[in-house]
Amino acid sequence: MLTATKKKVHNYSAGPCILPQEVFEQAAQAVLDFEGSGLSILEISHRSKPFEAVMAKAQGLVKELLGAPDHYQVVFLGGGASLGFHMVPLNYMKVGGKSAYANTGEWATRAIKESKLIGDTVVVASSEDRNFNYIPKGFEIPADADYFHFTSNNTIFGTQFKQFPNTGSGAGAVPLICDMSSDIFSRPVNVADFALIYGGAQKNMGPAGATVYLFDPERLGHTGRKLSPMLDLKNHGAKESMYNTPPVYAVYVSMLTLEWIKKMGGVAAMETRNAAKAKLLYDAIDRLSPVFKGTTAVEDRSVMNATFVLGDAAQEPAFDALWKEANISGIRGHRSVGGYRASMYNALPIESVQVLVDVMEHFAKKNG
Amino acid sequence: MLTATKKKVHNYSAGPCILPQEVFEQAAQAVLDFEGSGLSILEISHRSKPFEAVMAKAQGLVKELLGAPDHYQVVFLGGGASLGFHMVPLNYMKVGGKSAYANTGEWATRAIKESKLIGDTVVVASSEDRNFNYIPKGFEIPADADYFHFTSNNTIFGTQFKQFPNTGSGAGAVPLICDMSSDIFSRPVNVADFALIYGGAQKNMGPAGATVYLFDPERLGHTGRKLSPMLDLKNHGAKESMYNTPPVYAVYVSMLTLEWIKKMGGVAAMETRNAAKAKLLYDAIDRLSPVFKGTTAVEDRSVMNATFVLGDAAQEPAFDALWKEANISGIRGHRSVGGYRASMYNALPIESVQVLVDVMEHFAKKNG
Repeated sequence: MLTATKKKVHNYSAGPCILPQEVFEQAAQAVLDFEGSGLSILEISHRSKPFEAVMAKAQGLVKELLGAPDHYQVVFLGGGASLGFHMVPLNYMKVGGKSAYANTGEWATRAIKESKLIGDTVVVASSEDRNFNYIPKGFEIPADADYFHFTSNNTIFGTQFKQFPNTGSGAGAVPLICDMSSDIFSRPVNVADFALIYGGAQKNMGPAGATVYLFDPERLGHTGRKLSPMLDLKNHGAKESMYNTPPVYAVYVSMLTLEWIKKMGGVAAMETRNAAKAKLLYDAIDRLSPVFKGTTAVEDRSVMNATFVLGDAAQEPAFDALWKEANISGIRGHRSVGGYRASMYNALPIESVQVLVDVMEHFAKKNG
Repeated sequence: MLTATKKKVHNYSAGPCILPQEVFEQAAQAVLDFEGSGLSILEISHRSKPFEAVMAKAQGLVKELLGAPDHYQVVFLGGGASLGFHMVPLNYMKVGGKSAYANTGEWATRAIKESKLIGDTVVVASSEDRNFNYIPKGFEIPADADYFHFTSNNTIFGTQFKQFPNTGSGAGAVPLICDMSSDIFSRPVNVADFALIYGGAQKNMGPAGATVYLFDPERLGHTGRKLSPMLDLKNHGAKESMYNTPPVYAVYVSMLTLEWIKKMGGVAAMETRNAAKAKLLYDAIDRLSPVFKGTTAVEDRSVMNATFVLGDAAQEPAFDALWKEANISGIRGHRSVGGYRASMYNALPIESVQVLVDVMEHFAKKNG
């Protein structure tokens, strides 16, 4: 018999990360018996009617929640956003053409590296000069670029684009492509502005193992490049995400999570909820200065991942003991920034943020 | 509360397919609470110690169960074996070199198509002339090929290599590469004969969403081709399958299934078990001729997937009603063969095969 009682952990993991508790319960049930079929979700054919319905529902929810234009397509592929970094230039950079990128951190850097392997790649903006602690602004995107690529939220460095770059509109505009792995479904976006939005599922959408691609199929197939069908977004779209066996369970759990987002009021409600959590934590960081210090430009602070350090790094062991005692998990910062990172994805309840703030207050009072 | 009681279904799905019942129970428990951590397996970091232990155990079990040489490496990637079809020529065909393939069905055809996109590709053997209903034998492999690729078991057509092609041994031998998606862990193999064995998890190893690659790292990095790090097996091996976020849950369920195989006596025990199931079914097909007829050359019959048709196709609705009544699921043949396909992967109990044979006997008595 399964045991469902577990100790309460405040999960700040940067990804894979917390999902809604009710999703875990539905997801566990489906592993035992999927919709009363007598079969586990893990043992059914991806070509079975019940799974085709899961796939169609997940695809529909992505479009509905983000308000995507009707003709946009959704596919769920394996391989992670890192495979997407490779697929973007293959699918969008013309043979002999060029791409434009903003470099705002580790994942943008990896995406740029992949584009350089395919062709001429211009980095039009970068915040590398200050260890990626801000978002570049006011940069120019060359009008002859085949596309402009950026990373909307930088998980490691704790920065986020608050306004998206404007590449114009209409037939002559540079197509906009965004890796939204770590903030997709956290706020409304105008999908029609983007040729492609993609992201690994393992933050706001589901578990590791699926990557969502939401794209305008009319923007594909114009590079003059012969592609492997496995790396060809147009092919995956035409085959309705079933060109090969999709990551069945990751798609199913994503569907459950998307249903939860809808039930909670959609991405606008998520934005309100996330803003309240972020305000609670960032206000504490500022109020408790200099015991705690934020690491990024204030106007570029990520609503998803708050990075901060102690004014006195020697006090880290004492602070670590306190938050561990409060059953907080996963707030150690990435090695390239140090300090702490509190990831507050959609499913993290504000109660967990309050627990962290209480720990910080207590620590500041003792050590300030 | 989760309900664990379910109706008994005899699951003959060709993949994703049946896994051991105890694996479903452990896998469901981990979705609720992973090893008493208070966290779901779906929300933990792939960089956490508990998941690093899962990955290491899964990698170790692949090597242990197949008796792989110590220096071989194991990685679990997303994207399916279909992405492997693309990665094989990228990683093993020299720039200006050539590859050799056997074409024994749909998946081999797809692998060949991917190789042709990369370079000179010679199909040295094919059974396409008789709709892939046999395994070619006695063919020559060019000594100057960079590798020879074959598909050990053909899920759709129900044929299987009983003896593996011999490309010689020592430094001058043509490296052997095999897509074992649908019969890996069903029988012993001599791993040292292969430069690479790979396969989608979703038959004998686990759920859809992970693909295992077992390879000799010394055979990699010799093509003169600059690769995307995401498509570079050497990179994934060096990063211990953590270059990017791995498909966490699919790796975990694979680990559970591999533990089950070990507990049951390993791949030699699986071979005995699978041979008994195949004998039971194929004996019935032959005994009940001409009501039932096998579709493949007898000596090449797959132990995993038995394909057969009715002597009188007009009787299909009557036969379909019978097996459905017996709670048999998934034996409809692939559209390119028609008729029926009974997939008898490792986890299918012989009791399920007896139920099918009983249905066939009953049908033959009434309709013979």
